[in-house]
Amino acid sequence: MNIRMIIKTIGYLLMVEAGCMLPSLVVSLINQQNDTKAFIISIIFLTVLGFIMSEIPSRNNTFYARDGFAIVSLGWILVSVFGALPYVISGAIPSYVDAFFETVSGFTTTGSSILREIEGLPKGILFWRSFTNWVGGMDVLVMMISVLPAAGANTAHIMKAESPGPDPGKLVPRIGKSSKILYLMYAGLSLIMVVLLLLGGMPLYDTLIHAFSTAGTGGFSNRNLSVGAYNNIYFEIIIGIFMFVFGVNFTLYYQSLKGNLKSAIKDEEFRFYFFTVIAAIILITWNLRGTVFSTIGESLRHSFFQVNSIITTTGFSSTNFDLWPSFSKAILVLLMFIGGSAGSTAGGLKCVRCMLLFKTVKHEVRKVIHPRSVYNITYNGKTVDDSRISGVKTYFFIYMVIFSVALLLISLDGYDMVSNFTTVTAAISNVGPGLGVAGPFGSFADYSALSKLVLSFAMLFGRLEIYPLLILFAPTFWKKVNI
Amino acid sequence: MNIRMIIKTIGYLLMVEAGCMLPSLVVSLINQQNDTKAFIISIIFLTVLGFIMSEIPSRNNTFYARDGFAIVSLGWILVSVFGALPYVISGAIPSYVDAFFETVSGFTTTGSSILREIEGLPKGILFWRSFTNWVGGMDVLVMMISVLPAAGANTAHIMKAESPGPDPGKLVPRIGKSSKILYLMYAGLSLIMVVLLLLGGMPLYDTLIHAFSTAGTGGFSNRNLSVGAYNNIYFEIIIGIFMFVFGVNFTLYYQSLKGNLKSAIKDEEFRFYFFTVIAAIILITWNLRGTVFSTIGESLRHSFFQVNSIITTTGFSSTNFDLWPSFSKAILVLLMFIGGSAGSTAGGLKCVRCMLLFKTVKHEVRKVIHPRSVYNITYNGKTVDDSRISGVKTYFFIYMVIFSVALLLISLDGYDMVSNFTTVTAAISNVGPGLGVAGPFGSFADYSALSKLVLSFAMLFGRLEIYPLLILFAPTFWKKVNI
Repeated sequence: MNIRMIIKTIGYLLMVEAGCMLPSLVVSLINQQNDTKAFIISIIFLTVLGFIMSEIPSRNNTFYARDGFAIVSLGWILVSVFGALPYVISGAIPSYVDAFFETVSGFTTTGSSILREIEGLPKGILFWRSFTNWVGGMDVLVMMISVLPAAGANTAHIMKAESPGPDPGKLVPRIGKSSKILYLMYAGLSLIMVVLLLLGGMPLYDTLIHAFSTAGTGGFSNRNLSVGAYNNIYFEIIIGIFMFVFGVNFTLYYQSLKGNLKSAIKDEEFRFYFFTVIAAIILITWNLRGTVFSTIGESLRHSFFQVNSIITTTGFSSTNFDLWPSFSKAILVLLMFIGGSAGSTAGGLKCVRCMLLFKTVKHEVRKVIHPRSVYNITYNGKTVDDSRISGVKTYFFIYMVIFSVALLLISLDGYDMVSNFTTVTAAISNVGPGLGVAGPFGSFADYSALSKLVLSFAMLFGRLEIYPLLILFAPTFWKKVNI
Repeated sequence: MNIRMIIKTIGYLLMVEAGCMLPSLVVSLINQQNDTKAFIISIIFLTVLGFIMSEIPSRNNTFYARDGFAIVSLGWILVSVFGALPYVISGAIPSYVDAFFETVSGFTTTGSSILREIEGLPKGILFWRSFTNWVGGMDVLVMMISVLPAAGANTAHIMKAESPGPDPGKLVPRIGKSSKILYLMYAGLSLIMVVLLLLGGMPLYDTLIHAFSTAGTGGFSNRNLSVGAYNNIYFEIIIGIFMFVFGVNFTLYYQSLKGNLKSAIKDEEFRFYFFTVIAAIILITWNLRGTVFSTIGESLRHSFFQVNSIITTTGFSSTNFDLWPSFSKAILVLLMFIGGSAGSTAGGLKCVRCMLLFKTVKHEVRKVIHPRSVYNITYNGKTVDDSRISGVKTYFFIYMVIFSVALLLISLDGYDMVSNFTTVTAAISNVGPGLGVAGPFGSFADYSALSKLVLSFAMLFGRLEIYPLLILFAPTFWKKVNI
């Protein structure tokens, strides 16, 4: 392992993080709420530390897959470790563990919060909080690659480690160019959303907060009652639609812009995602009508918002869905596991994996009935090779194992099983709120420090799609470390 | 598909079932509690129906894998359909759906009950109830094969369909002989258990009931408070040990009898099973001490009993573990999923599958770190081929899908999520009691008829290891049906 190179690259990353704090500094300067000092200290600290790390002379340039994984996992951890500084220094979140949790939750686009009272916090701090959702949505590392050509030499291994999912979303041959195109679309869609919310009369500051958190499918709001605080159908429709939009594979937008709208709509994952959303909305509307809401209209309104919020793992709430009947809640929990599309900012298992798993079941049943027949699994018209299918199946099992381990550890706090189960689901799938103690109107504040760390790692496991973090626990990973 | 042959074979099966009712008839004759008539009618009906079906002339003797699956799945369903007769005719369980649920629960060795009050029922009926656990434990079909040579011609396909698991447990070349050896060990161990319980002062009738339900890892008791009713440490130790014993792969006993005790103890699945039990007992004892029970001794006592009861999917209770802290309950729920060893009477995913899945994770992590290295997964010193690993991984996913579908349907009844979640787990893993509404001292009576049918099918899916039942839902299964 090339430790020097890893330190060097993470040094660049920390300087990028310092740069990411600048907009929050501007907001705090405008609002004058005593959080300015916190941002200035954090920015200076990160810049100096990052600069020192980046200046370490590298002895050789050999760079293996392992090094890529180390950069990704350690990079994400350190960015969170230092991203917590403004919260702690400003006093907005006095406990460091809480601030770390909130930062991991931000960068992983989870949106779980240890805050009970959000509206009283300085605007610069809340801006930073939602901005971490936005930055995290498109990967700090990919951003670094597109911004800093100096680190560009090693991008192939980092990209590989960063996107172990089924669809790395490489649009054009050069990685740097691909990510620039992605960023333009990301920023463009965010901007359109800001304009539409402004047109509906939402204050500018609130539109930015909600656009950041929607684009990153994170779900941090500046209101205690989340989107429900506005009680405004227009906002719910706009945010609902944009949550859906940010849960679609971005390469499809690129295809559409290139004129291949038809093939984008025919994409199998998109269809799975779309019809899952429609089916869930219908079932929940049917389940809610006449019980929780008196009219079909109201049922549809909240069902539409909540289904889009949960499957895209954003986690905004328009109402307290913890009070919904078991059937609706069970659907929401299943949607948490499914998640959005690969190549989007959403978390969860991802639609493409679920689809491939279902296809495997069909395949297996056929094999049982006709043992001698040969039949391939296809995806978008192409045969999927066995090793990829095998990888997806293994991924599903590891997901459940990490889920189970986290659940056991969280259970030590003694909260009820529904809270524990959904809290862990919300963490590993990067959703945000669960049910019960940490429900949409609840908070993670009551969990112990151990649980908060466990949940932070569950979020990182989910966001990094497990392997980059998991291999840190493998003894063979640490063999042959060269300094 | 050879429909005539299927009907013929199921005809034999129903006659065997009639025979299985004879001991219960004897018990009812001894006790004279108005259930005698119910058994006589059921026995005559089954004998006549079975005879008529078995006399259908078969046009050809071609017999495919599909036919084997059809016999297994339809056979299990019909045996349950008619096994419910004594309950309904005697009036012990007036609702037919309830009686069907109880019978499926019996034959699948689940042990979930819709009864609220057990002790008032006629002794013949309770005998039949536990006897279904005992008969179901070693497969009605395997029994038929060993008893009726007439059906023996087609045994290969039936055995294949019946034992799709990783270890079909073929001891000697001839299937009939293998199953006779298994039955002798099964009966022998049950007899030893009866004697040991008698020595402790348990009434003969109760020893039979508990031996049947322990051997089948079913868990039907004749006491409302299950084994806890006796509040007797000796009984708990004996039953606890025997639950463990019946959760071991029976081929290991055969090996030991042949003198290969050493290789039996070295068996990887046995070690996994043994150490999982030990670890769970220690963790739960630690969690219970000072909270639920004042002494370590009491904690250990109930932890020992409950861990063995749950991992072997028996489901007896020595105390109301629904009142235990979340951590202990979370461990029990995980044990429900793991289950006992392959080739035992226990349900769940089975230890060997869990082991292979964990090995796959290790394998995958290695592959990520060293992409070019070749490394095989081994089990008991032999390389496991990819298709088997692939099958296990698919099995895990289908297990979760069936679990999820059942959970959604059950949720329509509106009970809390913990009850629903653990009820479905208990059903598909053939455990018996869950937590909450259907906890150890609760009952499944309150669930709707739809939920009871869904749970019945979940139990069958678990007992038959999914495929024989799942393929009934595949359209291609029904093509080319010859009558």
